Amino acid sequence: MDFTLNKTDPKSNARAGEITTDHGKIQTPIFMPVGTVGSVKTIHQRELKEDIESQIILGNTYHLFLRPGLDIIKQAGGLQKFIGWNKPMLTDSGGYQVYSLSNQRKITEEGVTFKSHIDGTRHFFSPENVTLIQRTIGADIIMAFDECTPYPCDYDYAKKSMHMTHRWLKRCLDEFQRSEPVYDYNQALFPIVQGSTYEDLRKQSAEEIASHEAEGNAIGGLSVGEPAEEMYKMTELVCDILPKEKPRYLMGVGTPANILEGIERGVDMFDCVMPTRNARHGLLFTWDGIINIKNEKWKNDYTPVDPAGTTYVDHDYSKAYLRHLMKTKEYLGAQIASVHNIGFYLNLVKTAREKIMSGEYSEWKNKVVKNLENRL
Amino acid sequence: MDFTLNKTDPKSNARAGEITTDHGKIQTPIFMPVGTVGSVKTIHQRELKEDIESQIILGNTYHLFLRPGLDIIKQAGGLQKFIGWNKPMLTDSGGYQVYSLSNQRKITEEGVTFKSHIDGTRHFFSPENVTLIQRTIGADIIMAFDECTPYPCDYDYAKKSMHMTHRWLKRCLDEFQRSEPVYDYNQALFPIVQGSTYEDLRKQSAEEIASHEAEGNAIGGLSVGEPAEEMYKMTELVCDILPKEKPRYLMGVGTPANILEGIERGVDMFDCVMPTRNARHGLLFTWDGIINIKNEKWKNDYTPVDPAGTTYVDHDYSKAYLRHLMKTKEYLGAQIASVHNIGFYLNLVKTAREKIMSGEYSEWKNKVVKNLENRL
Ligand SMILES: [Zn+2]
Ligand SMILES: [Zn+2]
Repeated sequence: MDFTLNKTDPKSNARAGEITTDHGKIQTPIFMPVGTVGSVKTIHQRELKEDIESQIILGNTYHLFLRPGLDIIKQAGGLQKFIGWNKPMLTDSGGYQVYSLSNQRKITEEGVTFKSHIDGTRHFFSPENVTLIQRTIGADIIMAFDECTPYPCDYDYAKKSMHMTHRWLKRCLDEFQRSEPVYDYNQALFPIVQGSTYEDLRKQSAEEIASHEAEGNAIGGLSVGEPAEEMYKMTELVCDILPKEKPRYLMGVGTPANILEGIERGVDMFDCVMPTRNARHGLLFTWDGIINIKNEKWKNDYTPVDPAGTTYVDHDYSKAYLRHLMKTKEYLGAQIASVHNIGFYLNLVKTAREKIMSGEYSEWKNKVVKNLENRL
Repeated sequence: MDFTLNKTDPKSNARAGEITTDHGKIQTPIFMPVGTVGSVKTIHQRELKEDIESQIILGNTYHLFLRPGLDIIKQAGGLQKFIGWNKPMLTDSGGYQVYSLSNQRKITEEGVTFKSHIDGTRHFFSPENVTLIQRTIGADIIMAFDECTPYPCDYDYAKKSMHMTHRWLKRCLDEFQRSEPVYDYNQALFPIVQGSTYEDLRKQSAEEIASHEAEGNAIGGLSVGEPAEEMYKMTELVCDILPKEKPRYLMGVGTPANILEGIERGVDMFDCVMPTRNARHGLLFTWDGIINIKNEKWKNDYTPVDPAGTTYVDHDYSKAYLRHLMKTKEYLGAQIASVHNIGFYLNLVKTAREKIMSGEYSEWKNKVVKNLENRL
């Protein structure tokens, strides 16, 4: 993996760059749609490529490990081949889902024992086996196994957990060094900064993570319920320490405004289930704010879904029709809203990149960010 | 509306023709995907047009009347404009759904009083108001209000009901003559032959329906549970009586084999929820037979969904991936299977038309029909 910085904003830490993987290039800042079990919900791979112009998508190790399982993915020749997506992919380490979804999880220094949320079968994740699992899944970028602390989290727990994440990181890196790619392309492993919302812990963690000189670095444990200002403060502080010449990934973030604020603080990569999940509930993100398409006010609005939208659904369908589909719980409603929202997120980061390249990022961000959380 | 016969099969009653509506031409024999509330479930309009090459789709008057309701459709400028489909459409009369879905329906000579299956509100459908409702919905082809008798149905009930359907037809035609199109294009009204599975009733009904010299004629009350041989016998008998120079529509039919048998007996138009409904349950129609993609045997079959398929999903995705999506209940599974199945149905009737045009229909049908119901 390779990262080139193309431009840094003169008035902020926003950067435009380019990541090169064996599955192609990614222009940063970038948003990565979440394809939990190998599908970005309701969206065809063709739409992701041709209409939305996604450059990288994410898969969840926890989900993929349980279903379809490693054998099926390995026989297919890796996740990309299995799902028919010949561009870059990233997998998380499964940690977050183990803590949030599985039953009866038990965390020890060795790793985490848990029961599947699907069939109750018992499994064990460790830094070593999660690294090998991600080798077998075969994403271009894989993540270190960490503990993502909840919010709020008391100081002592956050500190203890952070040091365990650091020890786990060494084990991940050792296993990563010892092992070979399973397929004929390279993988990069990103370590993850933890430390909850404590400045001293975040600094300490960022320094520890930076010291490993990995090909990219991630910030975890944010966007878990803390106030946005806390998230921004931690992001700023951590980005100040993480190496400038490597991509920075803010995990699980966020709203369009969160993303623009993250970019301003030097983040290059984002992922979040919000655009697809909210789409299924009828919430549409636009430059003017958020539309709840189920509201009465849209029932006879025959204007396009989003006149400023970049995908075909924005122009092929009207708000009134989309509202009708949502009210009648038709699949197509979720499909249209999801293509719209993911299209909007990709357009958001693409436009941010253009503004960085032209040196106007800060002014532009200050102007547009105010509208993004309007309720239309 | 206009109908031209291009060719009749020398060895059967199969015909190739062309219907011209103000929204474009339809090459027959044709299959019409069902778009219940104005959406062919899980399929984008763009996919229907460009990938599946659907020439006409169907809407259900009962569903559209309840949701979004006539005001919304009228303000949009008709159903086509509302849903973003600028090609021919057909609406049924709502009769079938009133009998099968609504609560507390009461049939009298005047019409049917029923309660909505959604919110229990009380409504009344009559030959006159259903004709006007379909004027407002605005499909190119609209259907007479009939009673679709169940199977089995005793002779006396079938006879009484048939005659009521005939009286209702006159009221529909009168109302159709008295009224004007609501939009700037013409509509055609098709009457419906009833008579259950009784030969004498079917003959009598076909003669009555033929006497009105409508722009097209439909055969109703079949594919409601009777043996396929009964359906074929009734279809044959009715097609013998209905005018040759007008299109014939066999309502609610059916499996791929049913359709080829119907074509052989002189049917030009078909509709059925089976390809989309079965898709959502993981059943795929192919030239070699029916695939239940949830079966264990497909779990590591990495070959394309259908190498002989005509749509992009057939080639972009593998059987193993589709099985995984179905097993994990991902939306994309239903989406892929639906595009495949509707694509298969359209390819089926397109191929049938080519075989009629080249004079080989009967031989071809006899050869392929044997495979269509295989369980793969
Ligand atoms: Zn430490
Ligand atoms: Zn009669």
